[in-house]
Amino acid sequence: MDLERLNRLASEFKSALDAQLAGEDRSESRLPSRNVVAAVCRHYVDMLFPLFFSSREEQSKARDEQARPYFREFESLLTHQICSALCFDARSRGERIPGKLEDCAAVQITALRGQLPDLARLFASDIDAAFSNDPAAPNHEEIMLSYPYIEAITVQRLAHRLYLQGVPFVPRMMTEVAHSRTGIDIHPGASIGESFFIDHGTGVVIGETATIGNKVTLYHGVTLGAFNPLEKDEQGQLRRGKEGKRHPDLEDHVTVYPGATILGGNTRVGHHSVIGGNVWLTHSVSPYSKVILMEPDLVIRNHFSSSDAPLYYQI
Amino acid sequence: MDLERLNRLASEFKSALDAQLAGEDRSESRLPSRNVVAAVCRHYVDMLFPLFFSSREEQSKARDEQARPYFREFESLLTHQICSALCFDARSRGERIPGKLEDCAAVQITALRGQLPDLARLFASDIDAAFSNDPAAPNHEEIMLSYPYIEAITVQRLAHRLYLQGVPFVPRMMTEVAHSRTGIDIHPGASIGESFFIDHGTGVVIGETATIGNKVTLYHGVTLGAFNPLEKDEQGQLRRGKEGKRHPDLEDHVTVYPGATILGGNTRVGHHSVIGGNVWLTHSVSPYSKVILMEPDLVIRNHFSSSDAPLYYQI
Amino acid sequence: MDLERLNRLASEFKSALDAQLAGEDRSESRLPSRNVVAAVCRHYVDMLFPLFFSSREEQSKARDEQARPYFREFESLLTHQICSALCFDARSRGERIPGKLEDCAAVQITALRGQLPDLARLFASDIDAAFSNDPAAPNHEEIMLSYPYIEAITVQRLAHRLYLQGVPFVPRMMTEVAHSRTGIDIHPGASIGESFFIDHGTGVVIGETATIGNKVTLYHGVTLGAFNPLEKDEQGQLRRGKEGKRHPDLEDHVTVYPGATILGGNTRVGHHSVIGGNVWLTHSVSPYSKVILMEPDLVIRNHFSSSDAPLYYQI
Repeated sequence: MDLERLNRLASEFKSALDAQLAGEDRSESRLPSRNVVAAVCRHYVDMLFPLFFSSREEQSKARDEQARPYFREFESLLTHQICSALCFDARSRGERIPGKLEDCAAVQITALRGQLPDLARLFASDIDAAFSNDPAAPNHEEIMLSYPYIEAITVQRLAHRLYLQGVPFVPRMMTEVAHSRTGIDIHPGASIGESFFIDHGTGVVIGETATIGNKVTLYHGVTLGAFNPLEKDEQGQLRRGKEGKRHPDLEDHVTVYPGATILGGNTRVGHHSVIGGNVWLTHSVSPYSKVILMEPDLVIRNHFSSSDAPLYYQI
Repeated sequence: MDLERLNRLASEFKSALDAQLAGEDRSESRLPSRNVVAAVCRHYVDMLFPLFFSSREEQSKARDEQARPYFREFESLLTHQICSALCFDARSRGERIPGKLEDCAAVQITALRGQLPDLARLFASDIDAAFSNDPAAPNHEEIMLSYPYIEAITVQRLAHRLYLQGVPFVPRMMTEVAHSRTGIDIHPGASIGESFFIDHGTGVVIGETATIGNKVTLYHGVTLGAFNPLEKDEQGQLRRGKEGKRHPDLEDHVTVYPGATILGGNTRVGHHSVIGGNVWLTHSVSPYSKVILMEPDLVIRNHFSSSDAPLYYQI
Repeated sequence: MDLERLNRLASEFKSALDAQLAGEDRSESRLPSRNVVAAVCRHYVDMLFPLFFSSREEQSKARDEQARPYFREFESLLTHQICSALCFDARSRGERIPGKLEDCAAVQITALRGQLPDLARLFASDIDAAFSNDPAAPNHEEIMLSYPYIEAITVQRLAHRLYLQGVPFVPRMMTEVAHSRTGIDIHPGASIGESFFIDHGTGVVIGETATIGNKVTLYHGVTLGAFNPLEKDEQGQLRRGKEGKRHPDLEDHVTVYPGATILGGNTRVGHHSVIGGNVWLTHSVSPYSKVILMEPDLVIRNHFSSSDAPLYYQI
């Protein structure tokens, strides 16, 4: 970051902070707020409860009508954050603030509204996927009330739409709210099919350019990552964002067990494949593959005395 | 989930949500609330601080008397959540709401009250276990004030009693509150002995039918999981809940180092055994066993030039 | 913990709790509060936003002036917590409460104030490090607004100064607040150089006596831990705190990929070394080393039928 840009940003930040401290409510001088983005996510998840059912009940437009009141509070907060993000983004590029921020935000919200039926359908498919895959789930209701991945995937699906629409800052802030609460880190750029399930979830990482098909199941500690995160282009610059395809593709009906790591933008896991626990995979496998570690050599020593040695980390 | 059941649940959810939005306070039409369950957990942990000491001080009934004022706020919130859960559970099964919800909840609370001295004793034993095992702990007080596993195990021990008493929804919601805050995912069904310690904790997963003896220590990233999560019964249905014994048993004085994975309902780790870091164990071992990985073959290349190759994920 | 000490602590705890319940505001009878410590951390991170830029803008003392208003709220809350911690610590040792708690706390705050310019400089260096290392980062602003490790390292750097100044309880409570929110567990005792970056972060553990040089990058799931956590001194007591050097040293420009584990107080990773994913390292390596696992033997079975076997955890 060059000094000039830093100086400019410094005064932006300071005036934004001053405005906040002074209690002013000029949305164009505000930073997007992590707390408000967290509230947006919470409202959204709460809203999907009734949407979930109405989306199955009927195919008519009445569905959208039913969702509208729940959507209103959500929309109002989200509009405000999108305004802040657009304004902040323009300033940080040194561009002029567009005349009517509210109009730009309204375009985004309208586009999002059109996605809601599809998002509700995906939400329902995810809950069904958990029930089919987890013997600890006594019913669908417990999944909705207490499974952390429900929050993670639901927020990511919303953030992914905003990411595709080009909204700055807010999508990534949304998925980090969910990451903080669940330990599941899914980049808003990742494209994920229907009926997705993550059991337990802590430590899961899914990178920006990963794609995941339908009916895929992951366990905790699975990484879909970059093999070479520091790939440069011809000018020696990092290939950032969607430009560089860095993360793997999982086709339909793939299952990945705990702690497995799958890396690289050219790595494709064929449909109906199973990747075993702790596997480290950096090349493609064909459909219906089963990839497991060779049974590791364990050293088992019986009847060692407890006074034998201090109990230490074993290699 | 069949369509008819979905339709019924949809209208339940909607009327519950409408009631909430309308500010009505009819507990029988409410969903259990994650926020209130989180408050219950917080009150409970706070309450154990003084209970902890009074439980050691004397064996008389005066102990219960001392705890009572702290217990009152906790009881009031928990009663309310149990009412919601019982009602919601009955409706989701299509059964009639029992006449006196409050009486059912009161039975649960009374049963729980009888468990408090034992829970306080276990709390004390857990703090002692941390002090004995962690050289970074300067004193017992720092453990109480800042060790995340204290929250995780304390909330799980409470949830486990409610789970055994048959309370729906609330136990799992409680352990997910603790999971969200600590990264430690212990199912309320797991049975855990006294003097339990988990260091660091992030990524620990302990399944529903696991049993753990006394004086067991785990490190971060340990999984006590199912070998075959999708075991079916004769009718081809998933064996759910307590029916299917899917998770391992750890006897007394077992230590499991970071990243180890122990799987299967028939896997039993004998007392005084030590399971090394990253071990993947799917069969039983006898008492006083020491299980470690063969020293893995490392490739060490010295003096490579930094211009040699991009720094990438290594296999 | 002997019974006498327990009894004494019990009455301390109870009177402290009674005072809180009674709404009294006698700071000397209070426990440090996790919620207030969380607020201190939040204020501190918010404060660094403008400090970040002003620290680069000029080298003059005007910098401190600019920070002062933001620092005031932070100072007020932190002073209060330090008072509680000092008082509680003295009592738990059975020592008399020092006459003027506020004076002791003021000394700590003044010392901390002198560290602020350096902390702001380190904050700036960390943000630059993320931008240089993460192709998913479109700009510096997104890093500040949404990267979890920013919160973890920023809070740890603050806690580390308080740890070095000898403040009890509060430093560890601070890093546990950040651990809870980010899944990154860095002990306040760890010494960390400038331009530090952790990608994703969930499951990272950095022990009390670890030292880390400049421009070091870690990925999620990396452990810098103790090889022998239960080392005893001649009297058979655990070697606690800074006494026992238990955790490794990483020199400048080291990169450690996901899931790697580096253990032991005598383990030193030379500068410009790269430690590959999942490596388990318990001895030193010289500068410019590259340590990777032998390519693990994978068993790949193609075209298995889905009816072939239940999909289970693979070994």
